[in-house]
Amino acid sequence: MKKLFAEFFGTFWLVFGGCGSAIFAAGYPELGIGFAGVALAFGLTVLTMAFAVGHISGGHFNPAVSFGLWAGGKFEAKDLIGYIVAQLAGGLVAAGALYLIVTGKSDFETIGGFASNGYGALSPDGYSMSSALLAEFLLTMFFLLIILGSTNERAPKGFAPIAIGLGLTLIHLISIPITNTSVNPARSTSQALFAGGAYVSQLWLFWVAPIGGAIVAGIMHKALFDKE
Amino acid sequence: MKKLFAEFFGTFWLVFGGCGSAIFAAGYPELGIGFAGVALAFGLTVLTMAFAVGHISGGHFNPAVSFGLWAGGKFEAKDLIGYIVAQLAGGLVAAGALYLIVTGKSDFETIGGFASNGYGALSPDGYSMSSALLAEFLLTMFFLLIILGSTNERAPKGFAPIAIGLGLTLIHLISIPITNTSVNPARSTSQALFAGGAYVSQLWLFWVAPIGGAIVAGIMHKALFDKE
Amino acid sequence: MKKLFAEFFGTFWLVFGGCGSAIFAAGYPELGIGFAGVALAFGLTVLTMAFAVGHISGGHFNPAVSFGLWAGGKFEAKDLIGYIVAQLAGGLVAAGALYLIVTGKSDFETIGGFASNGYGALSPDGYSMSSALLAEFLLTMFFLLIILGSTNERAPKGFAPIAIGLGLTLIHLISIPITNTSVNPARSTSQALFAGGAYVSQLWLFWVAPIGGAIVAGIMHKALFDKE
Amino acid sequence: MKKLFAEFFGTFWLVFGGCGSAIFAAGYPELGIGFAGVALAFGLTVLTMAFAVGHISGGHFNPAVSFGLWAGGKFEAKDLIGYIVAQLAGGLVAAGALYLIVTGKSDFETIGGFASNGYGALSPDGYSMSSALLAEFLLTMFFLLIILGSTNERAPKGFAPIAIGLGLTLIHLISIPITNTSVNPARSTSQALFAGGAYVSQLWLFWVAPIGGAIVAGIMHKALFDKE
Repeated sequence: MKKLFAEFFGTFWLVFGGCGSAIFAAGYPELGIGFAGVALAFGLTVLTMAFAVGHISGGHFNPAVSFGLWAGGKFEAKDLIGYIVAQLAGGLVAAGALYLIVTGKSDFETIGGFASNGYGALSPDGYSMSSALLAEFLLTMFFLLIILGSTNERAPKGFAPIAIGLGLTLIHLISIPITNTSVNPARSTSQALFAGGAYVSQLWLFWVAPIGGAIVAGIMHKALFDKE
Repeated sequence: MKKLFAEFFGTFWLVFGGCGSAIFAAGYPELGIGFAGVALAFGLTVLTMAFAVGHISGGHFNPAVSFGLWAGGKFEAKDLIGYIVAQLAGGLVAAGALYLIVTGKSDFETIGGFASNGYGALSPDGYSMSSALLAEFLLTMFFLLIILGSTNERAPKGFAPIAIGLGLTLIHLISIPITNTSVNPARSTSQALFAGGAYVSQLWLFWVAPIGGAIVAGIMHKALFDKE
Repeated sequence: MKKLFAEFFGTFWLVFGGCGSAIFAAGYPELGIGFAGVALAFGLTVLTMAFAVGHISGGHFNPAVSFGLWAGGKFEAKDLIGYIVAQLAGGLVAAGALYLIVTGKSDFETIGGFASNGYGALSPDGYSMSSALLAEFLLTMFFLLIILGSTNERAPKGFAPIAIGLGLTLIHLISIPITNTSVNPARSTSQALFAGGAYVSQLWLFWVAPIGGAIVAGIMHKALFDKE
Repeated sequence: MKKLFAEFFGTFWLVFGGCGSAIFAAGYPELGIGFAGVALAFGLTVLTMAFAVGHISGGHFNPAVSFGLWAGGKFEAKDLIGYIVAQLAGGLVAAGALYLIVTGKSDFETIGGFASNGYGALSPDGYSMSSALLAEFLLTMFFLLIILGSTNERAPKGFAPIAIGLGLTLIHLISIPITNTSVNPARSTSQALFAGGAYVSQLWLFWVAPIGGAIVAGIMHKALFDKE
């Protein structure tokens, strides 16, 4: 139960901080934080909560991570459902909090796409569905290679939250223009349900590609790099 | 006594560095550091002084942190007053130093709002009082969850100043447009007393919301995550 | 064999993440990550994969690093060829993946120079061949001094990926305008083969200068700083 | 002797990387790294070389640091001259390398002020001499408090290069508009000798204020915070 609370709060923080920085601060005139600031924010949500509650739940905050760790032999299948429910709940409650705050803006009109992920017409820079699939697959695959490698017992002790958090920053530095960067189905779902419409009908890609990439990484890590 | 000096210097540095970067460097034409640079500066004040004097005073530099650690069972009530006085003094002396420097600018006219926090008409991007309350409450709550979690004996040793400092950076990346980001009553007070007027009459929110969020986090951490 | 896979994936990530951030995100209107974001991305590719697979292959991801470590007495000559082949392969496959993604952009016309390195007419800011030679030589020399120093047994344990990764960020902060920053022949080759033309005929400099600087650093480190 | 080489190379890197990023990359149209990128570069020069050669020389790279550590009882007076000569030499050779590179730019006309420090008419944003004195004094004082505190035996082991390097980043985030940020007489001297004119006649301040602040910090740290 303690673990599920940790996953709930961690995923809340990931969505509240990552998507929140995009919604509130990215495009502020002159002084806004831009994509690089949003990339840093997403990474720091994971860095901070992995240090704070990683010793409790492992610090997944992301269904794709839970699947990847399961495929890599580091997480039990029986815990998958509970973790994913807690992650989805944390993300959705965070999206609700973002909604409450943004609607209190004096010139608020609409949340538009919120901080949703998308491809084709909904890609920030017009990337196709296949570009989005490839990018999300590869980025999540490497995210899991970083997670599995840096938490391996032969890696330096204690540094994994830095590697993993800044890895997520890196992933955003690369791919915000492509899909607005998901690599995390809970993050995508939390935004799409508020944005509605086409964002919901594109949501499948942000479950399939991240989880697919994560599972491939888990299998590869076990086969190639893990301690026999 | 040593501890109070540590809190004095730490809070001086937080206000001098964080608010100073906002006042001197954020809006410099073309090359200015923007909100992201200010966010980094605030975080690095805490990261650096937590490494430098955290082993002396615990490195609070913030009345809300002292309250949150007390609620979480990590700090004694009898030390609260001394710490808060030292923090307020450090912040005010830092604001005075900023004032001396900025008035030496060749085209200086007025400090305007200094780096004060505000809501409604004084919010950088026009967020309402209730948006500000919710944001400051949640952000300080998570700040304390990060502090309590990363300093827990089961967390990796030595990394807490990184998690906490970069956590404060993250908090600023999210919320400078909302309230100019407080999560710290000493930081808010130091600026409002120089800016005066409406900034002073809004100061209550930047005591109530951060301390409220911090206390809730302390109670939650003790109930949910702390080692029994 | 495990080592060669680690070098393959590490160099894939370096090129995919570093060059990818430049191609997709650097110049995005208003919100783009600019040179500083690209610098951070390059550094984080190395930081993350050095934590993830550094304990397997040493985490070179760069022929100049392999040469420099050999000159410094930390890597065996017989392993040079295998490592360099794996690095080149990883870089090229990553460039292919970038190509696939970028051609899926709705307004795609040409890859132009991709993220190639260049001097003279191909230097981003018009720096001459001799400026480029000197810059690439010195930057790679210091990159190797950082690598050899921070992995030395007297340096703090476990921190080397941070020093090395952020060292690569620093190198990019300095020199993107000069040569688009190489210090890595595999990275340069991967891009030039896709960009073609003059980029290929300038490729020699991005083998000669980095490897030259790396070897000098290896010799200097052994003579001046290594434990006798 | 080993120590002097370490100080020479460390200060070379500080000037080459910090001032170089300002000269080459800060003002590049659209994509330039700005003051925040320069701030990060300066900090990373120290972070990287402190990890690389800090175990050899202590990693000062700055006459003010050597004076401050002497005042704090952590460095012997008899070593001051040697260290300072090595630091000045490293800085000057780096400035020469920067000069060689920048003169190879196709549209090169003049180095202007190079990356010199200044006040009054030479302050980037028009700050007076007394503002500059106060800022440089306070910033160097805190720089030394961070150095002395984070290298203290009760601070977490191994993290000092992170605290110190990012502390220098923070100092630049605050004060580039005021003096172009010195806190380091070797860095200031290296640039002023190339820029000439009024930059040389203002050089005294960038020796007096940093060394003054450093000595005060050393005395304070010994009196207030050091282990008795």
